[in-house]
Order: sequence, then C-alpha cells, then structure tokens
Amino acid sequence: MSENNRVKEFTEFRHRMNERILSQDNQVVRRFFALDNQTYKDGALPLKTKELLGLVASMVLRCDDCISYHIAQCKEAGVNRDEFFEAFSVALVVGGSIVIPHLRRGVDFLDQIEGEGIHSPVQEHSHE
Amino acid sequence: MSENNRVKEFTEFRHRMNERILSQDNQVVRRFFALDNQTYKDGALPLKTKELLGLVASMVLRCDDCISYHIAQCKEAGVNRDEFFEAFSVALVVGGSIVIPHLRRGVDFLDQIEGEGIHSPVQEHSHE
Amino acid sequence: MSENNRVKEFTEFRHRMNERILSQDNQVVRRFFALDNQTYKDGALPLKTKELLGLVASMVLRCDDCISYHIAQCKEAGVNRDEFFEAFSVALVVGGSIVIPHLRRGVDFLDQIEGEGIHSPVQEHSHE
Amino acid sequence: MSENNRVKEFTEFRHRMNERILSQDNQVVRRFFALDNQTYKDGALPLKTKELLGLVASMVLRCDDCISYHIAQCKEAGVNRDEFFEAFSVALVVGGSIVIPHLRRGVDFLDQIEGEGIHSPVQEHSHE
Amino acid sequence: MSENNRVKEFTEFRHRMNERILSQDNQVVRRFFALDNQTYKDGALPLKTKELLGLVASMVLRCDDCISYHIAQCKEAGVNRDEFFEAFSVALVVGGSIVIPHLRRGVDFLDQIEGEGIHSPVQEHSHE
Amino acid sequence: MSENNRVKEFTEFRHRMNERILSQDNQVVRRFFALDNQTYKDGALPLKTKELLGLVASMVLRCDDCISYHIAQCKEAGVNRDEFFEAFSVALVVGGSIVIPHLRRGVDFLDQIEGEGIHSPVQEHSHE
Repeated sequence: MSENNRVKEFTEFRHRMNERILSQDNQVVRRFFALDNQTYKDGALPLKTKELLGLVASMVLRCDDCISYHIAQCKEAGVNRDEFFEAFSVALVVGGSIVIPHLRRGVDFLDQIEGEGIHSPVQEHSHE
Repeated sequence: MSENNRVKEFTEFRHRMNERILSQDNQVVRRFFALDNQTYKDGALPLKTKELLGLVASMVLRCDDCISYHIAQCKEAGVNRDEFFEAFSVALVVGGSIVIPHLRRGVDFLDQIEGEGIHSPVQEHSHE
Repeated sequence: MSENNRVKEFTEFRHRMNERILSQDNQVVRRFFALDNQTYKDGALPLKTKELLGLVASMVLRCDDCISYHIAQCKEAGVNRDEFFEAFSVALVVGGSIVIPHLRRGVDFLDQIEGEGIHSPVQEHSHE
Repeated sequence: MSENNRVKEFTEFRHRMNERILSQDNQVVRRFFALDNQTYKDGALPLKTKELLGLVASMVLRCDDCISYHIAQCKEAGVNRDEFFEAFSVALVVGGSIVIPHLRRGVDFLDQIEGEGIHSPVQEHSHE
Repeated sequence: MSENNRVKEFTEFRHRMNERILSQDNQVVRRFFALDNQTYKDGALPLKTKELLGLVASMVLRCDDCISYHIAQCKEAGVNRDEFFEAFSVALVVGGSIVIPHLRRGVDFLDQIEGEGIHSPVQEHSHE
Repeated sequence: MSENNRVKEFTEFRHRMNERILSQDNQVVRRFFALDNQTYKDGALPLKTKELLGLVASMVLRCDDCISYHIAQCKEAGVNRDEFFEAFSVALVVGGSIVIPHLRRGVDFLDQIEGEGIHSPVQEHSHE
C-alpha cells in the first residue's frame, strides 16, 4: 500500500480506538485522556516548546506512534526542519543509538507530511 | 488481510518460533520458558490475579505481543470488561501517556477475541 | 542511622515534597496527583488487587520508592507473605534479574514494617 | 550532613569522576563526552529550549543525577518556576506516576539552588 | 510478501533513511552516527565480542531493528548457533520474559540469513 | 563512612537479603535465582565474555548494583582496564548520555576494588 495510505490508516485506527476507549465507563482512563490534552496547551511555555518536549520524551522512550503524533503537532506549531533535527539530536545523545531506528521512522513520517503539502494528518485527534 | 487472520498469523508465528527456540540445546533458555509457565499457576494468589499482574507489567513495559498474550489469558480466566479497564487504568497512570498506543492495540485485540465469540486464540501456547 | 529512622525520614520527605509540589499553581500536576489517588480505589477490581498491580508495575519499572509505597499499601490491604512473594515472582520473571536489587530492598522494607508491628508508615500519604 | 553539603559532594564526585573517565585512553568515550557538550549549544533552537528538552528526557528516563544537572543548567538559562513546572507536567503525563519520586527529588534540588541564592552549583561541569 | 523480500525491504529502508538523515546539516547527529560506527571496531576487545555486547544490549532494550542488525553483524564476525543462544540466554535472564517476543523475531531473522546461505544482508550499512 | 566500608556494607546487605529471599517458600523465585547463577557458566562462550555481556546489559538498563556485581565478576575473570572501557563505550553509545552517571559510579567501584589490591569483594555471592 502507498505511504499516503499508511498515514491515513494509522490516523483512522487511532481515531477509532480512542473513541472506543472513551466510550467505556472508566473515569480514570477518561480523565487521563483529558489531562493528556490539557498538558500541551499554551502557558508559561509556548505550545511549540511543549510539543518539542513531548517529541523528545517520546523518542527517548521509543514509541513510534507517539513520535509520529508529536512530529505532526510540532509541524502544526511551526517547527522547521533545522529545529526538528536539533530536537532529534538531543533525543539521540540522551537516549543513545537505540533511538536510531525510531529516528529513521520519524524522519520518514516527517518527509511524508511535508512532501504532501498537507496540514498535519492527525490534527483533529488530540490523544497520542 | 482480515483481523481474524492477523490474530491467527500471530498465534502461529509464536507457536512455531517457541518450538524452534526450545528445539535448540540451550538449558538456560529452556528452563526460563518452563519457569515462565510455572509463574502463572494458581497459588496463594489465584491464576486470574496473576494474569492481571502479567498484563499490567506488560503494559508498563510496552510489549504488544505480551499484552495480547495476557489479555487472552485473562479472558480465559474470566476477567470481564470493567475489570480489564481498571487494570488498564493502573497501567496508564503508572506508565503514562506512552502506554496509550499499546492500550489502543490491546483494546482492539480484546474486541477481536470477544467479538468472535471464541475461546482465547492463544490458549494452547503457554509462552508470552 | 537506624532502619526505623530511615523509613521515617523517607516518609517525611515524601510528605513534605508532595505538599510543596501541590502548593505550586500547576493544574496538570495537581490533577495528575488526584488521578493517581483515584486509580487504586475499590471498584470492579478490589483495592487489594489494584495495589498488587501497582506493586508489580513498580517492580518491573524498577522504582524503589514506588515499590516501598505499594508494599505498605498492600500490607494495609491484607496481602500476606505468600501472596507478596507470588507477586514478586511475577515481577521477577517478567522483568528479569535486573529486578533482583529492587526485590532485595523491597523485602527489606517489608521486613521492617512487619517486624515493627506497626501499621503502614505511609498510610496517610496517598501519592507514590 | 546538610543539604548544602550534599549538593557540593555530588558536584565534586561528578567533577572528579569525569576527569578520571576522560584521563582513560578510550577515544569513543571521550568523543561521546564531547558530543554531549556540543548537543546543548545555542542553534536553531535556543540553549534554554534544549536544556528543557534534556530535562524532560532525563525525567521520563528517571535519572536523578541527569535531572539535577539539567535543572541547574535550566536555572542558568533563565527558566522560571512556572516554566519548570510546565516542563515537569509534560514529563509526568508522558512518563506516568513512576516519575513522581524523581519529581520530588528534582523539586527539592531546585529549592536548594534557588533558596541559596547562588548560581548553579554545577555550572562549570559540562557532562551530565 | 516473502520473508526474503522482508529482509531486503528492511535493509533498503534503513539504507535510504540513513542517507536522508546524514544529508541533513546537523553536526551532532552526523557525529553520533560516526561514533556509532567506531564503537564496534577491533580493539582491546575483538569485534566479535563487541558485536555480541551490542546484540545483548539491543535485546534487553528490546529494539527489533537493532537486534536484527547486530545478529547480522555477529554472523559476519563468525558467531555460531550455540554462541548466539548463550548470548540470547544472558539477555533473557537479565531482561526477563518481556524479551521473549524479541527473541522469537531475532531467531526468525537468524534462520532467514542462515537458511539463505548468504552473507549478512546488511553488511554494507553500518548504522543500527 | 569510608569507601571500603561502603563496598563491605553493600556486599553484606546483598548477602543477607539473598538468604532472606531464598529462605522463603517460593519455588519460582528460588528457581530464578538458580537460573541466574547458571547463566554465566563457561560454555560455548567463555565466562569472561558472558560477564561482559551481563555488565553491558546492566549498564544500558541502568542498575548500579548489577553494574557493581558484574564489574567485580569481570575483574575476577581477568578483564583488564582497556577491555572494561571498551565495554563501557558500547554501553554508552547504545544507551546514551543517560548511562553517564552509572558509568561514573561504575568506574569509582572499579577503582576501589583495583586500588585495594583485593579479589572481588562479592566473589562468594552469586546473585546480582
């Protein structure tokens, strides 16, 4: 399947499963999802910085879906290519070579959303 | 490929590779697999509780295959949907938002084994 | 310093720093602490099971303070020695030998709170 | 021993061991240390943002020494209390309650370097 | 798609993305990649031992791509099946049952490169 | 207290708690400890290589007690200073700067056991 479809499929799966999870009657889970949304709002630190923090945290913890999500959010927030790579370099040095495979997939994801000249494909879904 | 086939393929791969690994003449590896089986037997704590412990440990360590395996075992042991989500909520709060992508895949796996009205598809294979 | 003092000092530090953190005007942090409390309440799963889940999650993630906290909470909830060791065995097998140093410190902590014939020394503080 | 001495002892140990490590004839280790220094220099992203990235990465990976180091560097770079807590909140939500004990020790460290009205006690040592 | 194609696709993706990453003007990232290469050169410890160290580190950190890469490198360096399984046994005991799914995929990868009677499919690409 | 006493205290605590844990009637835990011992025996790979594997695994998983234990075992097995630092360099590059604080403490421990001209202080205790 094409790369474009892979991003779309990934986004749809996330969207569908988040709805499924939130439809369950579990208040702790729901509140956690709400809190996750609230975390990245503009505040003393601008949204852009917070998304970069979320991105680097996701990279050193090596979660591909979270990395894709925060790359899309960072792109929305105006992070440019040089800034992305400086954030990547922090993640690489702190987290080590074990981060490299995730860096490759992250750069590939970034290439896809940049190449397509579209807005973030996950912009309407707020949960990682 | 259909979801059903994906569960089947995953189970067959696990089964085949476990046999492959155990056919190798390495006593430490074999004993580890035997010990892994022994760990979840009924004891001072019931099997159901132990499987829930295995599930939450797998979630905070973020291992999709282990999560699928323990969800199937928990289902076998009679864990119901509310209990699953309370276990998920502990994993989410202890492990953080980085657990969310694994939660999505876990809930999807649970939906599949529940929706199909079948017994656990991995019931005959004891290693994670 | 005596073991008894070490438990006391640890408890006081946790209590003091939790107050310090919650006195700060950051709603996300405060809500996270509240959510953490809510997570272990009796529900579809009994409090005792949830505390065991928190304990095993803390062990595989190898956080000594969290392990001490959940051991004390489990003790309060009526977990006996055999049950503790079965929970430990799950953590050990899932998490590997890297868990052993934390197991040693956890058993030492359990010995202290049992030996002293006192209720959990951290019972009044709800955050890990 | 007093808190002040503890910070001093920690700084001296770090300084002494870094010298010891770099005196060894191992080029990979030396280059890694040099690269680590280079990572946080002003660039497309300002030093302050990079130090915040290093701080949050250290928190979700739960390394107390690294957290202390980056808190001191952030303080030097002008991060104020509200900004610190917003960075902490990202680490807490991404990394989960397992981060809480490290948050307590991090806030305690921040209190010490702020309370003493001194510049960062680790400012002259560049390795985490 | 056939197993053979999967190895090939994986190798091509790694090769392409490494080039993409190194074409970016970020000196820290480039130096990290160079340092990564330098790490496994023959020295006081032979290359074979270093690749085994890289393999076990990748297994306990549970990174499938890194495991595949180091298995291929170890194979090149002359590691035989018994030696592989002894290295696997260390990773399994240190890292716990959470390593098992990665062990399965690692053994599957080893089977593929051995079965095909070819030299390591990733021999020309030096980054994990 | 003196450095020498610190090593001694650490060794005694480990010895005492291992006995305490093994005195408990839990077969899974006992078997795990036995398996851990068996893992590092001479085999297809020499004991020295296996201890180096255990050391690097402990470093990237960042467990100070495990690092001290394996450094002592490696020293017993004849690992020299250059070899130690090459093993450290692999751990550092794979695991990242987050390993540095553990490297400092590991080198300090190595200095202590070398400086004192004694055999490994933990040689009689086989569990990490």
